Amino acid sequence: MTPTYQTILKAAATIKPVAVRTPLLESPALNKILGYRFFIKAETLQKTGSFKFRGAFNALSSLTDQQRRDGVFAYSSGNHAQGVALAAKMMGVKATILMPKDTPPIKLTNTKSYGADVITYDRYTESREDIGATIAAEKNLTLIKPYDNPYVISGQGTVGLEIHEQLKDLDITANAIVAPCGGGGLTSGIALATAELSPATTVFAAEPHNYDDTARSLELNERVANDTEQKSLCDAIVTPMPGEITFPILQACNAKAISVTDDQAKHAMWAAFHYFKLVVEPGGAVAIASALQQKLPATNKVVVAVASGGNTDQALFSNILQNFHSL
Amino acid sequence: MTPTYQTILKAAATIKPVAVRTPLLESPALNKILGYRFFIKAETLQKTGSFKFRGAFNALSSLTDQQRRDGVFAYSSGNHAQGVALAAKMMGVKATILMPKDTPPIKLTNTKSYGADVITYDRYTESREDIGATIAAEKNLTLIKPYDNPYVISGQGTVGLEIHEQLKDLDITANAIVAPCGGGGLTSGIALATAELSPATTVFAAEPHNYDDTARSLELNERVANDTEQKSLCDAIVTPMPGEITFPILQACNAKAISVTDDQAKHAMWAAFHYFKLVVEPGGAVAIASALQQKLPATNKVVVAVASGGNTDQALFSNILQNFHSL
Repeated sequence: MTPTYQTILKAAATIKPVAVRTPLLESPALNKILGYRFFIKAETLQKTGSFKFRGAFNALSSLTDQQRRDGVFAYSSGNHAQGVALAAKMMGVKATILMPKDTPPIKLTNTKSYGADVITYDRYTESREDIGATIAAEKNLTLIKPYDNPYVISGQGTVGLEIHEQLKDLDITANAIVAPCGGGGLTSGIALATAELSPATTVFAAEPHNYDDTARSLELNERVANDTEQKSLCDAIVTPMPGEITFPILQACNAKAISVTDDQAKHAMWAAFHYFKLVVEPGGAVAIASALQQKLPATNKVVVAVASGGNTDQALFSNILQNFHSL
Repeated sequence: MTPTYQTILKAAATIKPVAVRTPLLESPALNKILGYRFFIKAETLQKTGSFKFRGAFNALSSLTDQQRRDGVFAYSSGNHAQGVALAAKMMGVKATILMPKDTPPIKLTNTKSYGADVITYDRYTESREDIGATIAAEKNLTLIKPYDNPYVISGQGTVGLEIHEQLKDLDITANAIVAPCGGGGLTSGIALATAELSPATTVFAAEPHNYDDTARSLELNERVANDTEQKSLCDAIVTPMPGEITFPILQACNAKAISVTDDQAKHAMWAAFHYFKLVVEPGGAVAIASALQQKLPATNKVVVAVASGGNTDQALFSNILQNFHSL
């Protein structure tokens, strides 16, 4: 199966009874400061606190009865883990999940609370792909990859579908849609929906400074890796390199990329709290950050940023509220 | 004009192009702890950060051209102020607002940022009704009362309308809907919508312990006042007594009332952060608090709590994240 606009429509029908149609929010006060209409697509309010539930539920829905009986396996920095764990629980499927040791505790706890078996690994010295392949083969589990899976990409693409539907209700189109980008599942899904529904809109992948593999890959026209020994606060989007399936979609759709620092991500978390009453995690805030840092073309009149996840540790959030007080 | 289900439908049509259809959110993890399906209607995501925008916009829409040219006046603990200020700005109407001196600074700042003229008073020694009447008369302004106005009640009632529509999409009905209650605009609006759409559902008014005038009034079958010298963290719902128009509606609809402490409201703010990724202010969290404290009948299978506002000071929020870590 190749992800297309049609497979996104199909995913939308599949997840409709279970997923949250998240709101597209606007702050008149922030618009005034930015000088254009700025919207947040609040996927922090999605089930499990991130958009990942969409792709996970769609992917699990595509399995055969035998695959469901055998169970599924996923490796994830935490949000895909929760998405797979909850979707599996809802369908009565057993889930085994491999997660980095240093993932925020809230993500570990939540994944376990959905009934999944959790195994941890060291993200700086071990390969999750290798460990994953071994475990999945041993137990005959179906691997649900976090982004290089056409059903996952189609599920994430429903975020783009909803954005365009919601903008249409307001009788406007976006100049730019910017989304946090790790492996590219969300960004490529949105790019596919946008190419069909609003071809004049540019899709931007927002990345952490140290993990700007998509930006470099788009520039070089080939997939290049990150130095994964570097640390980043944006755990949700720290991935080794652009996906095999996702990257060609980004290229074909003329997507662009921009990057922000950890500090800019934290500042965006403050802004989401202050202007939108939203709890956003660092990796989920990089798209907002890129808009606040005026990294998008100045001619934009309507910009949508996806707040992709809200599973932040509360000590970090508390600390941010003590340190940031204005834009 | 008397507020009815029909005037709520009319208000829904009036505010549809401008108000956020806020999501009805559910947390599988919290459901498991509570033992029933618990939903939050996230009015924190409404324009201006509270449901008050609905009633304010509907009320201003009902004014004559002459009234709009003369301008409007409102007194408010802060959220109605912001609602009126933004609605007025959107319609090109001049707004003058009387607010308590000790209202959270964020509410003062936001109200001013929408272009309103703000005047402050001491809520413990001065009567906002008296000051308001004088100012309004002097300048020929139309007073938009925060709850004793049929258009305001109808606007707030659209929250109830949406809750029932959203529950219908899930093919369920609620046993209880609980909403924060100051003067009763929101609760009476929801009660009217509920009496029509889901008569078996009980509507609960949630109040701060020190300001449980609705509970006492319902018990005595007459409106009784609060001792307004008492302090409460729940600034949004600190009002002198139930409204003249709102209270008979609550009686007719067999509404009930429950109260929570400041500490329970803070604990609910933590829970909204943790389970729902929402920023809720103290007064906006009392309905959630009443559910978490198991103050509702134990036979409930489906409960909806309205998170009515999110305009909290960040120092308080930061402090709560340092002090609460579990239910």
